[in-house]
Amino acid sequence: MRRPFAARLGANENIFGPSPKAIEAMQKAAADIWMYADPESHELRHALAEFHDIAPQNIVVGEGIDGLLGYLVRLLIGKGDSVVTSDGAYPTFNYHVAGFGGVLHKVPYRDDSEDLPTLLSKAAAVDAKLVYYANPDNPMGTWQSGEDILSQLDNIPDGCVLLLDEAYVELAPDGTAPEIDINDPRIIRMRTFSKGYGMAGARVGYAMGQTDFIRSFEKIRNHFGLNRAAQVGALAALKDTGWLAVTRNNMAAARDTITDIAAKYGLAAVPSATNFVAIDCGGDGLRAKAILDGLVARGIFVRMPFVAPQSRCIRISCGPERELALFDKALEAVLNDLG
Amino acid sequence: MRRPFAARLGANENIFGPSPKAIEAMQKAAADIWMYADPESHELRHALAEFHDIAPQNIVVGEGIDGLLGYLVRLLIGKGDSVVTSDGAYPTFNYHVAGFGGVLHKVPYRDDSEDLPTLLSKAAAVDAKLVYYANPDNPMGTWQSGEDILSQLDNIPDGCVLLLDEAYVELAPDGTAPEIDINDPRIIRMRTFSKGYGMAGARVGYAMGQTDFIRSFEKIRNHFGLNRAAQVGALAALKDTGWLAVTRNNMAAARDTITDIAAKYGLAAVPSATNFVAIDCGGDGLRAKAILDGLVARGIFVRMPFVAPQSRCIRISCGPERELALFDKALEAVLNDLG
Repeated sequence: MRRPFAARLGANENIFGPSPKAIEAMQKAAADIWMYADPESHELRHALAEFHDIAPQNIVVGEGIDGLLGYLVRLLIGKGDSVVTSDGAYPTFNYHVAGFGGVLHKVPYRDDSEDLPTLLSKAAAVDAKLVYYANPDNPMGTWQSGEDILSQLDNIPDGCVLLLDEAYVELAPDGTAPEIDINDPRIIRMRTFSKGYGMAGARVGYAMGQTDFIRSFEKIRNHFGLNRAAQVGALAALKDTGWLAVTRNNMAAARDTITDIAAKYGLAAVPSATNFVAIDCGGDGLRAKAILDGLVARGIFVRMPFVAPQSRCIRISCGPERELALFDKALEAVLNDLG
Repeated sequence: MRRPFAARLGANENIFGPSPKAIEAMQKAAADIWMYADPESHELRHALAEFHDIAPQNIVVGEGIDGLLGYLVRLLIGKGDSVVTSDGAYPTFNYHVAGFGGVLHKVPYRDDSEDLPTLLSKAAAVDAKLVYYANPDNPMGTWQSGEDILSQLDNIPDGCVLLLDEAYVELAPDGTAPEIDINDPRIIRMRTFSKGYGMAGARVGYAMGQTDFIRSFEKIRNHFGLNRAAQVGALAALKDTGWLAVTRNNMAAARDTITDIAAKYGLAAVPSATNFVAIDCGGDGLRAKAILDGLVARGIFVRMPFVAPQSRCIRISCGPERELALFDKALEAVLNDLG
């Protein structure tokens, strides 16, 4: 059994939680759990289509973005095929690429951001079939404007697909999501109910793209992979737009609080459009790791990026004042200890 | 939107439902859905290990047996590899074999049962890497004794794995599950919370086998594929052994009722060890299909096997008296109409 933490600020969750309507819907659905869920996620898919002003045939719902990443890599990547990502970006994507025998090429972050121009030029150089690009990014929380991404789409090499991971986009400033033509077969984008909607434990993600591309998932996906209550909960969460607005405000306030806490101790926070903030610990990875270890020892669960130079940071989840106050106190103690 | 049925007797669910303690646990967990579930299913896996008197390292938990079947096929089957199953057995297994490029060889049922001796001799003949065998069987509900299976294990060809799908075994007579040495690398067995435990919509299954074999799933599975509430619910369901005992009685009574209904109209039910009964409609597949269509038109949702000669039957889920009475009435009307 694990020791519970005083503040759980490391698991990249949305501590403000989901819409109460989503919780209520899931609680109600629990009594119906003897029934299989709809393998087509008909209602949820149609609601998402309406929300995004696209067709239901442009959407596939899956067991979180993680599950959809696995399906996508399986569809596109055979043994020895080249794939491009950023060094230190989402490791689960890399896991799936390795699992299907792809050859991963990594480009460094630029100014703490995933660097789309370099990702695309690397893709051309190595004849990549797939490029991973998260906007906003995990673990740094940085983001580019949708316009900026849109202006680069013609640099996607022939025969290459750009995977746009938008797990955090509901928490980002308006204009962060590019207005991409859904019929453009060069791009697939992924969204989740784990972050902005606060349902990480439910496992509901979806991919959006051209209909033929989306249809290809039908040949390989686990059709009954989704939990019935999760489907219902995601639908309720999607419809509660008021709750998402409140969450956005809560996140923005918490980002400011974390930034202020960091500044109090002379540390700089990386501007974030997500549910977490990376704090530059003002040294190298060893310095950050020492601070992280000190926090964990004091019951504050946080994590840090794996790869330099991002690993000079620790990553703090946004949360209510109580949790952040505990973090503040622990950080002060740790920094005093370390001198 | 689909029209709701008066009686949902076709989706192969457990209409008696899960333990109230499992429902309560899932409802409680809904409020915690902002947290990721434990990717190792630590508590559930340890409880299952204790239940089966094996080590936690002998168990992998996944997104239903369907998800685990996909992982297993991916682990064992490459393009062109031979796989053996029964003609008319679980189609989702065949789907995964096709998805990974395996070549499927089918042997017929014998006396409405999956025919293990012939499956194993076919496996030897085609140099199969994997054999699918369900005990009890879907869609016929038939079963063999554990002793009978145990006596045949030495006929598994070298380099071949026997996949024992025991989705229904909690509902079968004592002695149906063979006492296989968990360290025998030739066998992997799968179980689920969808049938006996009545949680089809939760998506929790597990595989049991030798530790090295089980460990290989770690390299490919979707580690965060399981719903948090489902994990908690499955644990509560496992612990409520009293509820399972009641379910077993309910199922046995419902099987008897379905058998009696069939007999009333001169039809024979196939003896079943599952949550459903196949009724021999006394003709060919067209006759069965006509009866099925008549039932569906009257709001009674049932299904039928795909393949002759099993397709002479319709498959009726066990359920409470109310549902079965509706089925009785509709069947009478359909048979009168058909003459």
